[in-house]
Amino acid sequence: MGDKGRILLAATGWDTDFWLAEFAAKAPAREVVLAPDGDVDPSIDYAVVWKQPPGLLSRLPNLKAIFSLGAGVDHVFNDPTVPDVPIVRVVSPDLTTRMSEYVVWQVLDHHRRGPCYRAQQAAHVWSEDKNQCAAADITVGMMGLGELGRDAAAKLRAIGYSLSGWSRTARSIDGISCHSGAEGLADFLASADIFVVLLPLTGDTTGILDATLFCQMSKRGPLGAPVLINAGRGGLQNEADILAALDDGTLSAATLDVFCKEPLDRDSPFWSHPKVTVTPHCAGASIPSSLIGPMIAQMDAHDRGADLANLVDRSAGY
Amino acid sequence: MGDKGRILLAATGWDTDFWLAEFAAKAPAREVVLAPDGDVDPSIDYAVVWKQPPGLLSRLPNLKAIFSLGAGVDHVFNDPTVPDVPIVRVVSPDLTTRMSEYVVWQVLDHHRRGPCYRAQQAAHVWSEDKNQCAAADITVGMMGLGELGRDAAAKLRAIGYSLSGWSRTARSIDGISCHSGAEGLADFLASADIFVVLLPLTGDTTGILDATLFCQMSKRGPLGAPVLINAGRGGLQNEADILAALDDGTLSAATLDVFCKEPLDRDSPFWSHPKVTVTPHCAGASIPSSLIGPMIAQMDAHDRGADLANLVDRSAGY
Ligand SMILES: NC(=O)c1ccc[n+]([C@@H]2O[C@H](COP(=O)([O-])OP(=O)(O)OC[C@H]3O[C@@H](n4cnc5c(N)ncnc54)[C@H](OP(=O)(O)O)[C@@H]3O)[C@@H](O)[C@H]2O)c1
Ligand SMILES: NC(=O)c1ccc[n+]([C@@H]2O[C@H](COP(=O)([O-])OP(=O)(O)OC[C@H]3O[C@@H](n4cnc5c(N)ncnc54)[C@H](OP(=O)(O)O)[C@@H]3O)[C@@H](O)[C@H]2O)c1
Repeated sequence: MGDKGRILLAATGWDTDFWLAEFAAKAPAREVVLAPDGDVDPSIDYAVVWKQPPGLLSRLPNLKAIFSLGAGVDHVFNDPTVPDVPIVRVVSPDLTTRMSEYVVWQVLDHHRRGPCYRAQQAAHVWSEDKNQCAAADITVGMMGLGELGRDAAAKLRAIGYSLSGWSRTARSIDGISCHSGAEGLADFLASADIFVVLLPLTGDTTGILDATLFCQMSKRGPLGAPVLINAGRGGLQNEADILAALDDGTLSAATLDVFCKEPLDRDSPFWSHPKVTVTPHCAGASIPSSLIGPMIAQMDAHDRGADLANLVDRSAGY
Repeated sequence: MGDKGRILLAATGWDTDFWLAEFAAKAPAREVVLAPDGDVDPSIDYAVVWKQPPGLLSRLPNLKAIFSLGAGVDHVFNDPTVPDVPIVRVVSPDLTTRMSEYVVWQVLDHHRRGPCYRAQQAAHVWSEDKNQCAAADITVGMMGLGELGRDAAAKLRAIGYSLSGWSRTARSIDGISCHSGAEGLADFLASADIFVVLLPLTGDTTGILDATLFCQMSKRGPLGAPVLINAGRGGLQNEADILAALDDGTLSAATLDVFCKEPLDRDSPFWSHPKVTVTPHCAGASIPSSLIGPMIAQMDAHDRGADLANLVDRSAGY
């Protein structure tokens, strides 16, 4: 200990034992303290956070960088007093692979009529209607072409889907019809049949999944009406608008992994809505064994004077 | 008409209108007759069949080749009087892609705990247990490394799974740990966690999915006990053994697209078994628009003296 920067772990709502064990295994020379209720240790160098208690980080005069325990950093900015030090987010092949598993799984479940076959199974009905379109007949529209959106898109292409995408800044990606910014949104929405949302939650994206957006989505596709799959953040959703769009047929179905309020209330209408698949924010879990090693490596390199990678752009908010 | 060989269409249980329309569109110069109940036209050159009525084909003295409407040809050999002419089976990128969609979908549904999350949704339960292994921790064992098995394996690899496979003759495929023959079966069964069956139904494979086989499957994997996904043929299954293996935990779950008797009886225990996903033989549908064109092209080429492709090996039975 001593010469290696000290770490504060502030992971609200998480079981910190796993994380502490992983720190002990990967960085035995670093002292790790848990977020205290009262005084904080002014010698802390690095904060590792998930929804840190507001005001905590601003009391660390020696803080060199904040490491988010997730790919998204909206939970960091919920605290208006976050000090102006670099914020590092998770970019991890393990997380990316898991998220792509989830996206491919849910796209296939809608395209290959999972809900329909499950209802038929429950009713002991053997349907002779086997007509379903091929993957190539379906365009999946990726809302967000970042680390997660690009990998999921590549895997969806491998399965056979056509792809379009939307991002803040203009991108050019092999095999994806790319759109960007507010000016590219309408064309993007008209281009796809299944929409996969992997946007960060920022001032610009809060509540973006609303009636105005759904109305612009293509209804000409082979699924009749568009499917919404949101594995980004609950705050992107206008949840009343989603329910209304499902009920009036503007959307044909939805898979939601995230919600405005988590855990989802027991009496939320989403649970029992026949057109909704609910998963409990499990699309891309942050796993200690795969995240702590690279995090420690970044701290070590930074202690030796190297630049930090995967930095958050504060003005963009992600 | 006249100089182009005549076609007999004998597709038991299928809606032949779609197929006739497709023949009319793709081969206006060829006469297509439907399988009759009584006399048959002795000038028929090609038979296009799905479960042809036994004895029908042997009454066609001019028959040059039989075209199966499916990738499997067990339905052709159910008729012991099939004449000794070449049998062409379906090998089609469209069918292959559809089957791979199905396989990837069902592997993901088991790996990503689809049944568990659906049960939690039905109970309005938000689980905080998000631990699930990554695709790389799971080995998918392909029983059958033919046209369909190889493509599905490649797509599963793209998602991140480890792969092993089993075939009749020895094969060497990049990224797949290959086993073959009776002598390779035990090692294969010990190597995987999720088993995807894409075997043809032959004398050697009938009833192969039985208690003896399930007992040799690995139980050391991250899923606890092996998962069975059969999209080959129902006749591969010992269905009583599958139910017993699910009930005593030898198998953890199963997805079955095919059954010994189809349509599945309304009172079959598979419908309501909590560990079983039933789909109505829809994994890889034969679609007229994608199959008839290549079939006609083969007939045209054969009329000009070319060899037929995708021929069945009668001694192997597939
Ligand atoms: N459900 C889960 O379990 C889970 C797990 C991990 C992450 N997530 C969520 O997934 C999000 C995406 O992660 P990531 O690693 O892919 O993030 P990322 O690499 O930062 O990519 C974000 C993408 O969104 C685009 N974007 C941001 N603001 C936009 C706007 N106003 N208009 C249009 N496009 C906009 C970005 O555009 P540019 O390309 O122009 O920058 C980029 O393509 C995270 O922020 C997090 O909220 C969820
Ligand atoms: N559910 C559906 O909708 C659907 C749709 C289409 C097809 N199918 C079924 O899928 C099957 C496979 O289609 P395919 O086009 O991939 O067939 P294929 O190209 O003929 O491949 C068959 C594979 O099974 C292996 N095999 C055959 N007999 C074996 C034995 N006794 N022991 C071990 N391996 C054996 C073959 O070994 P070798 O490599 O050594 O030849 C080959 O790898 C079809 O026969 C059909 O029954 C189902």
